[in-house]
Amino acid sequence: MTKKNYRVTFQPEGREVLVLEGTAIVEAAGQAGITLNTPCGGQGTCGKCRVIVHGDAPAPCVAGKKHLQADEISRGIRLACQMRVDRDMTVSIPAETHFFEQVILTEGRDDLPHHHEPNLIKRFMELARPDENDLKSDVDRVVDLIAETGVEAWMDVPLMRELPVLMRESDFSLTAVIDGDEVVALEAGDTSHSVLGVALDIGSTTIAGVLVDLTTGESMAMAGRTNPQIKYGDDVVGRIKFAGENTDGLKKLQRCVIDAVNEIVVELTGSKGPEPQHIYELTAVGNTTMSHLLLGVPPQSIAQAPYVSVFRKGTDLKAHSLGIEVNHNANLHLLPNVAGFVGSDTVAVAMASRIDQEEGITLAIDIGTNGELIIGNKDRLMVCSCAAGPAFEGARIRQGMSAANGAVNKVVINEGIEVGVIGGGDARGICGSGLLDAVAVLLDTGLIDPTGRILTGSKIPDNVPEKVASAVTELDGRPAVVLAENNENHGGAPVLLTQKDVRELQLAKAAIAAAFTTLTGVFGIKPEKLDLVLLAGGFGNFIRRSSAKRIGLLPNIPSKKIESIGNAALVGARRALTCRCCREQAQLFSDNMEYVELAGRQDFQQYYMEEMTFPDPNESE
Amino acid sequence: MTKKNYRVTFQPEGREVLVLEGTAIVEAAGQAGITLNTPCGGQGTCGKCRVIVHGDAPAPCVAGKKHLQADEISRGIRLACQMRVDRDMTVSIPAETHFFEQVILTEGRDDLPHHHEPNLIKRFMELARPDENDLKSDVDRVVDLIAETGVEAWMDVPLMRELPVLMRESDFSLTAVIDGDEVVALEAGDTSHSVLGVALDIGSTTIAGVLVDLTTGESMAMAGRTNPQIKYGDDVVGRIKFAGENTDGLKKLQRCVIDAVNEIVVELTGSKGPEPQHIYELTAVGNTTMSHLLLGVPPQSIAQAPYVSVFRKGTDLKAHSLGIEVNHNANLHLLPNVAGFVGSDTVAVAMASRIDQEEGITLAIDIGTNGELIIGNKDRLMVCSCAAGPAFEGARIRQGMSAANGAVNKVVINEGIEVGVIGGGDARGICGSGLLDAVAVLLDTGLIDPTGRILTGSKIPDNVPEKVASAVTELDGRPAVVLAENNENHGGAPVLLTQKDVRELQLAKAAIAAAFTTLTGVFGIKPEKLDLVLLAGGFGNFIRRSSAKRIGLLPNIPSKKIESIGNAALVGARRALTCRCCREQAQLFSDNMEYVELAGRQDFQQYYMEEMTFPDPNESE
Repeated sequence: MTKKNYRVTFQPEGREVLVLEGTAIVEAAGQAGITLNTPCGGQGTCGKCRVIVHGDAPAPCVAGKKHLQADEISRGIRLACQMRVDRDMTVSIPAETHFFEQVILTEGRDDLPHHHEPNLIKRFMELARPDENDLKSDVDRVVDLIAETGVEAWMDVPLMRELPVLMRESDFSLTAVIDGDEVVALEAGDTSHSVLGVALDIGSTTIAGVLVDLTTGESMAMAGRTNPQIKYGDDVVGRIKFAGENTDGLKKLQRCVIDAVNEIVVELTGSKGPEPQHIYELTAVGNTTMSHLLLGVPPQSIAQAPYVSVFRKGTDLKAHSLGIEVNHNANLHLLPNVAGFVGSDTVAVAMASRIDQEEGITLAIDIGTNGELIIGNKDRLMVCSCAAGPAFEGARIRQGMSAANGAVNKVVINEGIEVGVIGGGDARGICGSGLLDAVAVLLDTGLIDPTGRILTGSKIPDNVPEKVASAVTELDGRPAVVLAENNENHGGAPVLLTQKDVRELQLAKAAIAAAFTTLTGVFGIKPEKLDLVLLAGGFGNFIRRSSAKRIGLLPNIPSKKIESIGNAALVGARRALTCRCCREQAQLFSDNMEYVELAGRQDFQQYYMEEMTFPDPNESE
Repeated sequence: MTKKNYRVTFQPEGREVLVLEGTAIVEAAGQAGITLNTPCGGQGTCGKCRVIVHGDAPAPCVAGKKHLQADEISRGIRLACQMRVDRDMTVSIPAETHFFEQVILTEGRDDLPHHHEPNLIKRFMELARPDENDLKSDVDRVVDLIAETGVEAWMDVPLMRELPVLMRESDFSLTAVIDGDEVVALEAGDTSHSVLGVALDIGSTTIAGVLVDLTTGESMAMAGRTNPQIKYGDDVVGRIKFAGENTDGLKKLQRCVIDAVNEIVVELTGSKGPEPQHIYELTAVGNTTMSHLLLGVPPQSIAQAPYVSVFRKGTDLKAHSLGIEVNHNANLHLLPNVAGFVGSDTVAVAMASRIDQEEGITLAIDIGTNGELIIGNKDRLMVCSCAAGPAFEGARIRQGMSAANGAVNKVVINEGIEVGVIGGGDARGICGSGLLDAVAVLLDTGLIDPTGRILTGSKIPDNVPEKVASAVTELDGRPAVVLAENNENHGGAPVLLTQKDVRELQLAKAAIAAAFTTLTGVFGIKPEKLDLVLLAGGFGNFIRRSSAKRIGLLPNIPSKKIESIGNAALVGARRALTCRCCREQAQLFSDNMEYVELAGRQDFQQYYMEEMTFPDPNESE
């Protein structure tokens, strides 16, 4: 019996795909270009990937029955990773199930009450008209009314220039946009329903933004871009070098990140959506170098001993002064750095994960081109940073790509090597989680030895399945492994794992693992005694924990103690957008987290050398 | 015996003039283009016009012996209005004796301790170098050292961009310029000796500026300009109309006042003096319209019932954002307005004259194109404003001119009409005080009747001296009086007082006198019960009190109760420059002074009509 094709329509995007009967909804969504949040990796164990199937929904699966309430099931809520397509259907994806919307998931961890108290508010005002008994100035007329809410507001001269005409043309009915204690914009009539903000995570490799309705705190849209600075250097050290050695190097780096932010703003607001000038506030996080480049501050000192940044504290400036095309008076709040390479993204991770609220000891890792680690509890927090390089994000890998359609994201060995491809279809390359899987399974079979060599010919152990052994090939005189043969649509080029790819991964994992060992050592705890390990960042969300442990990226601790918290840096940026007190909290994190500088430490150097090899399961630890 | 010529050299200007034996030093200074401060009008009664005669000084005059100490006399100090030139001499003019330097004179009235505590300070810092045990960011390194002085400072992004290079190139020795709590500039090495500020009084007709060394609080130079906005309207209502009715009218008005400020800055710093970029702070005062035009804020609402301004409170902005060419980060603090036309200049007069410190009731008048009146004591202060028009400043008068060389500034009747001319030499025109004198003496002789008519032919009373009567002539069919015949050097054109000139003066004096009567009435005091009347403004400094009373500009109160306090508005602006607490004080004045709007008041209209005529000495009051 041949399988049928069914049509699945995703809302609110309105995208349609045709999929084979039996396809999981999460995969159908992937084919529609919609990435769902699956912290458990699609095992049906976390119950997070909830979608709503409209109309006549299929019966819930076993996992669904476990995780869902009866009334949820009757409303058509199902788990996207388990539910298979068996008819045409229309599926709504709640914001929190979108991959980028792990924001909300992460806030689920937050046991403390979380205010919706944005720094920026709008206030509609029907002002009294001046008369002989009320000769207040125009500005006083506005700020005195605002003062009734307890805010001593002020406005800058450019706004004073607009006020008298606006006030009279709008018949003394207008809406003030108030950012902290500054009136940053004035609009005729009642526009208080429309107050937008954008939170940005400026990563070395990826820039992500979320559009937030500041009246409700709800996310309206998400968008991401590869950081175009990558063309000037794929890690922060390369870009710092470019900034220092080229005329206008700093300006070029700043310009291209601003361009990307503007593209994100356009995508977030959309062709029929709100106007970018209705965005009145932005928050941003990034590592120290990204923060310096965003503001156009020379970053050279960050890369030279003793590795100090130019600024640390939270910084406010007019977004338009950087060329960001939103409301002319919109403020950009860049969250505070800590020290060295540890930037506001790490502060944001600390804030989002609330490590500081716990008795138990948590270690959070944000794995990106730079890896940042935070360890501690309510009494003490330590942070460090290491340069993992962009291998985890698919760069410097021969056929590396980001976790998009066509990327190998899963590798298993049955008879031969089998791969999972994002969005189904042909494999076009390999993303970070696929790379980790590939090396892990090839280490297990013995095709890669603990030093990282891909074995060839007679050196291949006998127990390696023949189909696996036959996948070994050669590229430029060095060994490589064919992960996926390919059909002629892509010129027949197979997806390879090269010896150099393995070396890149070894370098990256060595940096993270050495930082892990050093930081736990300085803090005075053995890794296995940790109460919780949190994986932040898109990569942390996707990797299989077993593979991460197999290659030694993570120490051998129980998988149940390892949790993914998604793009926690963006969560933190979003919090600072929707809650003013989070900015003070961020500054406290920045002031109080103890910074461990790895660069000059003997122990880190030693661990780094040791971690360059993969764990040998035959050796006892 | 013919009189000899002597050479007088004035220091520190280095100007030389040749004058006839017997010329008063104040007149010699006038010929050298230096205007001295003579609050008593050169009568030798106030003792303020002190100069230092170097070398072998002539013996002191009677007045000098009365006002000067023995040690002052032995140091060569003399009174410039009484001391006659009888030899070649070199004369130093102390800053306080310069006309513009009445600043310091006025501060003599100030019985309260006066801080020198400028908002802007410089701090030289030798910073610790970063090392592995001191990983502070560059900004933290600077602000933490400043924090030791109790100031929690911050700096804006543009300065952060300069900091890392500057800090390292200057070998970690640099000077921070701190304005309030903002680090506004950073300079390599120790530049803490050079901190300059400028205080500005933006009058409708005249703009004056003083350059102040903020390390000592001392004035370094003074400069003034006619307000070039005058070409768009000679009073504030005309300019408001121009701003509203012409494309870019507001921009043009703003541009030309900024141009004048820039010229003043250039003159203040001079060709060999300090650079304009060493000016780090400015303060400014002006009437409400001037304040709005300076900032480019539409002023229309000030001129339309119910006469409200756009802004009132003290306002800070970057001077360069207006186009003022001083240090790029210099702040401009514009002092607060009160209401309607009563601007920050009046706040500054109140602050400088310290009316609010007295038990007795003082009335202060700032006579300019707009007249502002303040009445009260420590318990209560009231203010009002009236449109005097620019007649007192020489405008709208046929041969009107400012109080510069060649201006008739004094008129007396002996056999005929005799005039005093500023700087000696030929009369070229007439200034405000000359106009007042002329009308006053012609009223006394009976050539002008109480309705303001210049009498002609048979209507001239018999007791008018023949030489005076023969000075009556005709211009365009209306009567005029020849005040000064003129020699052929100036084409033989005499200086005339025309019928229209008298009418202009009547309008101007009627406005001031009606405001005086209305304000005292509202306050509940009879004019003759006032303890003190203060005359502010350049014009108030020059006029003869007897003439002011004769024409009814001032009520008939004893001259000893009338004091000139010079350009008190500039004094107030200067105080706000050298003492930060004065800005708060100014805001309190602005918040608490009771504003009396004259425009709609019946009593003011009534008084204005009544005051249009001159007092008739034959009528008892």
